[in-house]
Amino acid sequence: MAELQILNLLLVLIAAWVGGMVAKRVGFPPILGELLIGILLGPALLGILETSEALNTLAEVGILFLMAYIGMEINFKDLGKASWAGLLAAIGGFVVPFALGYYTIIIFDGTQIAALFVGIAVGVTSLATKSRILVDLKLLDTRIAYVLMAGALISDTLALVIFAGIIGFVDVGSVDAAGLTWVAGKAILFFAAATLIGIYGFPLLGKLLSKTKTINRTFHFTIMVIIVLAFSELAEIAGLHGILGAFMAGLFIREGVFSRNVLKDVTIVFHDMSIGFLAPIFFVTAGFHVSLEVFQTDLVLLILIIAGAVIGKIVGTALFYLPSGYGWREGITIGTGMNGRGAVEIIIAGIGLQMGIITTEIFSILVFMAISTTLTVPLFLTWTTNWLRKRGELVKQDTRKGYLILGANPLGLYIAKQLKEHHEVVLIDSNKELIHEANEQGVTAIHGNALKEDTFEMANAIDKNTFIALTGNSEINLLATQLANNSFYIPNKIVLMSPDENAAGVNLLDPMDASSLFANKTDMAPWAYKISANEFKENIETVESDSTTREWVKERGKNKDILPILIVDENGHKRPFHFKDNISANEKVIYLE
Amino acid sequence: MAELQILNLLLVLIAAWVGGMVAKRVGFPPILGELLIGILLGPALLGILETSEALNTLAEVGILFLMAYIGMEINFKDLGKASWAGLLAAIGGFVVPFALGYYTIIIFDGTQIAALFVGIAVGVTSLATKSRILVDLKLLDTRIAYVLMAGALISDTLALVIFAGIIGFVDVGSVDAAGLTWVAGKAILFFAAATLIGIYGFPLLGKLLSKTKTINRTFHFTIMVIIVLAFSELAEIAGLHGILGAFMAGLFIREGVFSRNVLKDVTIVFHDMSIGFLAPIFFVTAGFHVSLEVFQTDLVLLILIIAGAVIGKIVGTALFYLPSGYGWREGITIGTGMNGRGAVEIIIAGIGLQMGIITTEIFSILVFMAISTTLTVPLFLTWTTNWLRKRGELVKQDTRKGYLILGANPLGLYIAKQLKEHHEVVLIDSNKELIHEANEQGVTAIHGNALKEDTFEMANAIDKNTFIALTGNSEINLLATQLANNSFYIPNKIVLMSPDENAAGVNLLDPMDASSLFANKTDMAPWAYKISANEFKENIETVESDSTTREWVKERGKNKDILPILIVDENGHKRPFHFKDNISANEKVIYLE
Repeated sequence: MAELQILNLLLVLIAAWVGGMVAKRVGFPPILGELLIGILLGPALLGILETSEALNTLAEVGILFLMAYIGMEINFKDLGKASWAGLLAAIGGFVVPFALGYYTIIIFDGTQIAALFVGIAVGVTSLATKSRILVDLKLLDTRIAYVLMAGALISDTLALVIFAGIIGFVDVGSVDAAGLTWVAGKAILFFAAATLIGIYGFPLLGKLLSKTKTINRTFHFTIMVIIVLAFSELAEIAGLHGILGAFMAGLFIREGVFSRNVLKDVTIVFHDMSIGFLAPIFFVTAGFHVSLEVFQTDLVLLILIIAGAVIGKIVGTALFYLPSGYGWREGITIGTGMNGRGAVEIIIAGIGLQMGIITTEIFSILVFMAISTTLTVPLFLTWTTNWLRKRGELVKQDTRKGYLILGANPLGLYIAKQLKEHHEVVLIDSNKELIHEANEQGVTAIHGNALKEDTFEMANAIDKNTFIALTGNSEINLLATQLANNSFYIPNKIVLMSPDENAAGVNLLDPMDASSLFANKTDMAPWAYKISANEFKENIETVESDSTTREWVKERGKNKDILPILIVDENGHKRPFHFKDNISANEKVIYLE
Repeated sequence: MAELQILNLLLVLIAAWVGGMVAKRVGFPPILGELLIGILLGPALLGILETSEALNTLAEVGILFLMAYIGMEINFKDLGKASWAGLLAAIGGFVVPFALGYYTIIIFDGTQIAALFVGIAVGVTSLATKSRILVDLKLLDTRIAYVLMAGALISDTLALVIFAGIIGFVDVGSVDAAGLTWVAGKAILFFAAATLIGIYGFPLLGKLLSKTKTINRTFHFTIMVIIVLAFSELAEIAGLHGILGAFMAGLFIREGVFSRNVLKDVTIVFHDMSIGFLAPIFFVTAGFHVSLEVFQTDLVLLILIIAGAVIGKIVGTALFYLPSGYGWREGITIGTGMNGRGAVEIIIAGIGLQMGIITTEIFSILVFMAISTTLTVPLFLTWTTNWLRKRGELVKQDTRKGYLILGANPLGLYIAKQLKEHHEVVLIDSNKELIHEANEQGVTAIHGNALKEDTFEMANAIDKNTFIALTGNSEINLLATQLANNSFYIPNKIVLMSPDENAAGVNLLDPMDASSLFANKTDMAPWAYKISANEFKENIETVESDSTTREWVKERGKNKDILPILIVDENGHKRPFHFKDNISANEKVIYLE
């Protein structure tokens, strides 16, 4: 096993891990740290690490699975939902920098094919650490986040399709009409075949697999690996690149086709194997191929490419975004958010280098472009969002909207009616009378067993943002929340926990990242009674300084005669009062007495 | 990415998958099918597939992770518990075939080092499809199964330690005292260092990791990969082989050191990545190196090695097993069960071939030895166990013993008292009075919240074989069963499900492979009342022909006035009546009326 050079692999992995971790700590995507540490420790600077055949093999396999994973993460539904605005942003953010990159290379006497490659690389979008930065800047529920996500998805897909279009022509030297048709025909055939197999073949396979009950997770995983490699080979046969096949395979490996549970596990293995092990090898070794001499020999080109990438992306996005009617300021904000380049760009640049389409200099420039554009994102995006925020132009929107509430008892109904003022609310309960009563009072309510997926599907759980479980039975609440979490991925989960000593403890909330409703164990029955008998008082209290729900409850000595139920923000929007929440100064707490 | 030759990798994987699946269907371990299809499609016969640098790299990485996974699956506790009998079987089953293999090679003019290699390969034990065959032959709860498991564990560990002893000397040509000391010293240093790091370093790391809450599964996985590679490198530095390091690392990556939840996920990824993807590449390509010419050129040696392996293993085991006092027949049965050779043998043979220690001929012989010995297992073991069974010498025993019952209500207590006649039974309940009552009546009962791990630990859940949840609240039953399943891996789970339409449905049992108590949704309260008021009749009915619990219940029209609670086998042993069980002719059903 001397060929494997365990030491080399080990060092590359440690480097990747350290680089990725440091980058993540500072708020950047791990890939940035991996590239930088590759440049630092590789031949370009310290020369401690070097590439090898074995590393290349692992990196290439890693990239295939990473592309498959990226495909798996793209949901057709999301693409379909991607608003007009997202489409505009994606196109503008791609076309303008693409053109700038292309012409820069042409002016600097590069080949047309190299120019096209650089164009794609410059046009690509990567959301820097996706949700992380959006969370940090408290953007997750804004329209910006929504457009950014959609824009990046479309942009990735667009870039890969154009990449497919170009790569087919690489081997064809002088192009005549027949040759062109042949190349384009093969590519189109590939996409048609892949789509047909994905749409009609996969569901058949899925059905077949679901019938053979003895078959386990590993078996499914092996099949997925084979599918990904088969699609890659199909792409190669069509004269395209394997990563396109892997990406297409990933697009079609999705829920509804294969069983939800199996898919979840398989996705974990794909994710960890590629992102946690193989793909970082690619990004670190990509750093090995970077030449620092470009700072001397090609400084002008380097600056022009980076400038073109940044300006092209931001201005292009803002320009094309105008027809959305959301204003040029929001367009610029979107542009700064989409300015990062990441995995897909480095993969495309790496393939270009490997195929001899671009030189080491151009490759190095593209790597530095990725690094510098990604570095701009947190900085620029903080500026632009603060700017929007100060002008009051930060519009809220969320792909998942509204509340799904389990428990149509008087307390649940009371909360539902208040949340309904600004949000979509659906109640579910197994008690027909309560459902009837809720519908009477104008609240959408659905009758069904809360521990069955059917009921959740009827209530459109997959589109809901928050799940509240407030039956009097903590265990039912917990089991239902597990379903909401595991099968419907509802991001926010709030659970009413009973104070009964023998009941389930709050320790069961942690694995689901759920929060405790009312920030305190609470007995539902007495409050439900008080509400139905109208024997309560609703108080509103304005909070004077920033605080947490925990402190609010603590200050009142966990008084059982007080029940904090909602927080009202400065715009009058209400949200439920629960354990994992902060209360800002001037927000109000509604509590019952 | 032309170097990767996706097509070749794809074909090898498909071959591995088909071979493995067919072998599994027919009741053999997948590795058998992988080896055979490698021989069939590789250069030896059809010549369709061939090896490549890339395949070798992936295979070698796969073997490292497979060894780490094998190590992870070995539990120190299990090794410690491994009975005197298991140790005897392991030693006898290793030493005798080792000696036969060694002297056969020496007689045939092989080098001493080659003879040692063959000795280990012949001595190794692999349980053919481990639990599968034990399930098929209904052996899971017998002493044989217990000894087999322990024997295979010890044998694997023994083989790897001896392998380490030998491999250190490979590079040392002529051995003088100083050289010997140096080689042995390095090996001992490695084991000491690895053990120290494992025992003292890992828990520190585990603590550190558990403190940094933001850190996720993938992060842990990457760290585990790095640890495995680091141990491999350490082994290589000590002049040993990387697989030893990976195995040692796996031994120390275990519960108590790292968080249970994280470890579970990480183990899944290790398992699927190695067994579902990379390791099969190794076994298929191992088949590529087999030469069929040995059937002409070395037929005598081939026959001698296989005969020595089979006879040595069975006779050796039986001989050394005598001091256990369990009789020579059981010894021979154990021997036939341990006669398979699998992953570890092929890996060792592959390393020998790669290092030039053994020739292609010897390698081929070892592969055929693995195939033929593994083929004997189901056949021989069926014979020997039937033989024991007919003589009434099939002794029951299980590593996990007894029942853990949640719910000390009258019904639970009633069942506990009956099961207690032949089994260990522990009751848990959160009601102190019920606990007191149970203890009064001579049943071990523990007070605590059934949804907390502490309570389960107090009740020694990790050693229990069956968990029964029969509180009146289905949801508590389900949550507790989840805990029993996910954190304490209790193999059999039986849950009382309430007939209440709004309660949790039986669909929630499937993911845990749990069964429904009484084979029917049942309301606990009325029966508990009847028992405590002594207003019931206990009937016993002998079943006339083989049937299932489902049919038993069905035949009585799901009569709510009858409650089948226990099945009594011919030896008078009782077991709870639940959905997933068969009733044999002449077994009795105890039911309440």
